[in-house]
Amino acid sequence: MHFDVFTLLPEVFPPYLESSILKRARQNGLINVGIHNIREWTHDRHHVTDDNPYGGGGGMIMKPEPVFEAVEDVLGTPPTCPVILLTPQGRVFTQEVAQELSQHPRIALICGRYEGLDERIREHLVTDEISIGDYVLTGGELPALIIIDALTRLIPGALGDANGAANDSHASGLLEGPHYTRPPEYRGWEVPEILRSGDHGKVARWHREQALLRTFQRRPDLLENISLSKEDRQFLEQLTQQDKDKGDQDEI
Amino acid sequence: MHFDVFTLLPEVFPPYLESSILKRARQNGLINVGIHNIREWTHDRHHVTDDNPYGGGGGMIMKPEPVFEAVEDVLGTPPTCPVILLTPQGRVFTQEVAQELSQHPRIALICGRYEGLDERIREHLVTDEISIGDYVLTGGELPALIIIDALTRLIPGALGDANGAANDSHASGLLEGPHYTRPPEYRGWEVPEILRSGDHGKVARWHREQALLRTFQRRPDLLENISLSKEDRQFLEQLTQQDKDKGDQDEI
Repeated sequence: MHFDVFTLLPEVFPPYLESSILKRARQNGLINVGIHNIREWTHDRHHVTDDNPYGGGGGMIMKPEPVFEAVEDVLGTPPTCPVILLTPQGRVFTQEVAQELSQHPRIALICGRYEGLDERIREHLVTDEISIGDYVLTGGELPALIIIDALTRLIPGALGDANGAANDSHASGLLEGPHYTRPPEYRGWEVPEILRSGDHGKVARWHREQALLRTFQRRPDLLENISLSKEDRQFLEQLTQQDKDKGDQDEI
Repeated sequence: MHFDVFTLLPEVFPPYLESSILKRARQNGLINVGIHNIREWTHDRHHVTDDNPYGGGGGMIMKPEPVFEAVEDVLGTPPTCPVILLTPQGRVFTQEVAQELSQHPRIALICGRYEGLDERIREHLVTDEISIGDYVLTGGELPALIIIDALTRLIPGALGDANGAANDSHASGLLEGPHYTRPPEYRGWEVPEILRSGDHGKVARWHREQALLRTFQRRPDLLENISLSKEDRQFLEQLTQQDKDKGDQDEI
C-alpha cells in the first residue's frame, strides 16, 4: 500500500515510520510512504503557504495554490486515488473505516495546519475528510500517522503474529480482556489460576467472557453491532441480572 | 503543566515536541515534557520489558516490574498525579475530557506496546484509562502526543491568538464553517462576496450559520449538547424544513 502525505512539518514523520511494525512493513515492501513538503510548491522568495482569512478573525489560513500544485504534481490531474483531508470536520475514523481504506492500493493524506485551509481545497481537490476524534489538534500530522499505523496493521504479514490483529480491541468488536505475564506473583498480586491451568478450552472461554465483561462494563454501545454466540448471550444475560440484583439490593 | 511520558519508543517524541505550538509552549515555560524510557528500569542484561502471555495466545505482554518501577521512581509511591494508560479499552477522549485533564498541574501517560500489558499495572498503578478512538494502533505513543497537543492548546497563552482555541471545531460544540484566503479567485472559484463586504455583523452571522449548517449536515449528533440562541434555532428549523421539502419533492 502506498501513502502520500502532504504536510508543512515533514520532519515529524521519520522517527515513527522508522519504529517497530511500520519499519518492518516498509523494509518488507508492504507499505511505502512518501512525505511531501507543501512548502516546496511555493514560488515566492519567502515560501509563503498561509495568509489572513477573508472576513477577518484570528489565525492564518492555508493558501490553495501550493496544496493543489503539490497534490497534482505527485498524483496527477485529477488524482485517481482517494485524497483525504485530516480535519475535525470529517467523518469519524473507526476500525471499520480503516478496513474500508485499506482496500485502496494508494491514498493521499493532506495535513491541515494553522486555523484551517482555504475552502476551495476541500471543495475541488479533496475526495474524503476524516476526523480521528472529537478533539482539537494543531494539525493533521498525528492523525495522518495514526491512519498509516492503523491501516498497516491490517495488511497481511505486517504483524509478526498472524492472529495478532484479529484479537485486538475493536477488531472483533469487543474490548480485549486482561492479559498477564510473568512473574506469577508480583507484590502479592497473583495471576488468575485458570490461566496457569493448561486447559486450553477453559482458557479460551475465560478470555471470551472477560472481553464480554469488559465491553459490558465500559462500552456497552459496542455490543449492539457484533454477532454473539448463544453462550455469549447467556453470559451477558447473567451480567445484566447481576447488575439488576445489585441495583435492587442498593435500594433496600 | 507537566507531562511525564513512559514509553519504550522515546525517540518518537522529540520532533513533534520541537514543532510549532508545542515548541513555543515549552520555550515559554507553559509546558514541560519528561520522556522516560521504561527500558531503563530493567535489571537484566538484555533489558527485557515483555514476556509471553499466561494461557497462551499470540503477541507479547509488557511485564509489570519495569513499568511500576519507572512510574514510582519518577513520581513517588504512590504517585499523587493522574496516571493515565493509553488503551483502546479506556474512556473515549473528547474535547471535554481534554478540558478536564488540563485542570491538573501534572499528568503521567503510560504508552502500552505489544499485545497489551500485564493486568496488574492496570489494577494497581493506573488511575485512568483513555482511548483516542475506536481503532487499533501499535502503541500508545501517538495517543500520548495527541493528548499533549490537545491539552497544551487549552493553556492560556499557548496559542498566539487569544481567540484561536475558542473558535476551533468542537471547542464551541460546533464544527467550523469554511474559511477563505487570497487569491479572491482561483481557477475560476471565487471567495463568497459576503466575506469581502467589510460588514462585520453580517460576516459574523454568516460564520455562525455556516458552522450550524456544517454541523447539521455532517454531525447532527453534536447539536444535542450545545446551547443555541433563538436565531440559531430559527436557522436550524429552516434547514430541517428545507430537508423535509426536498424529501417530499423526491417522493413525487
